[in-house]
Amino acid sequence: MADLTSTRSPRVAEVRKLHDRRHRAERGAFVVEGPQAVSAAVGHRVDDLYVAHDSVERFSDLIAQAHAVGAQVHTASEAVLAAMTETRQPQGIVAVCPLITVSMATALTEATHRALRCVVVLDRANDPGNAGTVIRTADALGVGAVILTEGSVDPHNGKVVRSTAGSIFHVPIASDVPVREAIEAVTKAGFLLVAADATGSVHLGTMGAEAVLNGPVAWVIGNEAHGVHDDLRAAAQETVSIPMSGGAESLNMAAAAAICLYATRVAQHPGE
Amino acid sequence: MADLTSTRSPRVAEVRKLHDRRHRAERGAFVVEGPQAVSAAVGHRVDDLYVAHDSVERFSDLIAQAHAVGAQVHTASEAVLAAMTETRQPQGIVAVCPLITVSMATALTEATHRALRCVVVLDRANDPGNAGTVIRTADALGVGAVILTEGSVDPHNGKVVRSTAGSIFHVPIASDVPVREAIEAVTKAGFLLVAADATGSVHLGTMGAEAVLNGPVAWVIGNEAHGVHDDLRAAAQETVSIPMSGGAESLNMAAAAAICLYATRVAQHPGE
Repeated sequence: MADLTSTRSPRVAEVRKLHDRRHRAERGAFVVEGPQAVSAAVGHRVDDLYVAHDSVERFSDLIAQAHAVGAQVHTASEAVLAAMTETRQPQGIVAVCPLITVSMATALTEATHRALRCVVVLDRANDPGNAGTVIRTADALGVGAVILTEGSVDPHNGKVVRSTAGSIFHVPIASDVPVREAIEAVTKAGFLLVAADATGSVHLGTMGAEAVLNGPVAWVIGNEAHGVHDDLRAAAQETVSIPMSGGAESLNMAAAAAICLYATRVAQHPGE
Repeated sequence: MADLTSTRSPRVAEVRKLHDRRHRAERGAFVVEGPQAVSAAVGHRVDDLYVAHDSVERFSDLIAQAHAVGAQVHTASEAVLAAMTETRQPQGIVAVCPLITVSMATALTEATHRALRCVVVLDRANDPGNAGTVIRTADALGVGAVILTEGSVDPHNGKVVRSTAGSIFHVPIASDVPVREAIEAVTKAGFLLVAADATGSVHLGTMGAEAVLNGPVAWVIGNEAHGVHDDLRAAAQETVSIPMSGGAESLNMAAAAAICLYATRVAQHPGE
């Protein structure tokens, strides 16, 4: 195993650059920090694994799995790991992985292998914590794919990756998708386009909503500040509202998505 | 209206101090930033309102409402507002308000006036964004009260307040509640203590879960890293799991709470 002890090593600078979206796109790689995310990554693909000197024994399984998927494994000082990462505590392990996003066509094909006949379209999701939480929820509930429209945060952004808690490696994700392309692809693939909106005439939790969610459905969750994109709203075949009764005007994007996706699961797998 | 132009004014230092939990407890006040949160605050109580010089006209309604609830209104330079706040863009308006937390007894009494016979107990919720999102979701769905156990973040923390999007002024909140006191009070008030846990034998979305959620229920949502507190787990009369099928081991705390509270709403107000 190669050993890294200088924070001035060109490799450190190279990894640091991957915190920038443009460099990630150029290099085709992103950074994954901490044992939880890295153990999801080694089930997928890893280019380089960096392990703190005093964590080599603790992470021997992860190191073996990384070798098995063809990763180069390096040991490094705590200072080197800290210099590579965004967080104060990279927890002894950092991986550089190939970008995980796929085309719309691939995402929709892969979606057919998952538990729910459902994909989620995040419309200009610009909060990384919310985007990551939606990816995590989608994974947990068996949602087929997550589509991030143009103007959304890059799913390989460090804060998104951390918020997914490893789920970024489990769900097919298409990103930077133009709205028109998203509409065309999901419609062609046979998904009913359903927008979540407070003004929707179909109320979630009713028989009407269950009938809508019973078949293949593409949920559109709008931007928190601006709501659902005009083109998506116009193209939506159904608009569904979450029943509310308190003083709140709206839900957080990730909370709204969790409720819509859970309701879809109940409609598609009742009594499970 | 008094005018503030120096960032060295003692008043600026006084407001800044309120970003510290200990000072908030001493002073009995906290800071609210931006028009959305301030417009919720003026429906409640405000001690001091600070408005940027060029925003006085735009916020004339909020200023009138603040006067009506007995606030002192001040104009201030952008620099003064920025020095008072945690965010880069206080958006022209900042309020100092009396703390909003109430005792467990008051929270449970006020809970009876709200749409759902349901309270949520957040067990050592230490992520401010998650805590704020749960408060916002609870408000939107008509949940009776939010109880934060000892070891949780202070709901008056700036990041919590921003994440609630104004809902902090709408839902009764008790904070820093010892676990034993929380258990005793909700049980005595007739709520069924229900813990959300992946190992729960009752599955959310089934008839069994509906029967549990049909009456007054106190949902315990555990700390993300450590799960539900042993004492709360032992005291829970039911343990309910959210059905999952993907690769994710667990849900984000705010997403889990959104799903549990939504399911409670459906059980208590079917077809609405």
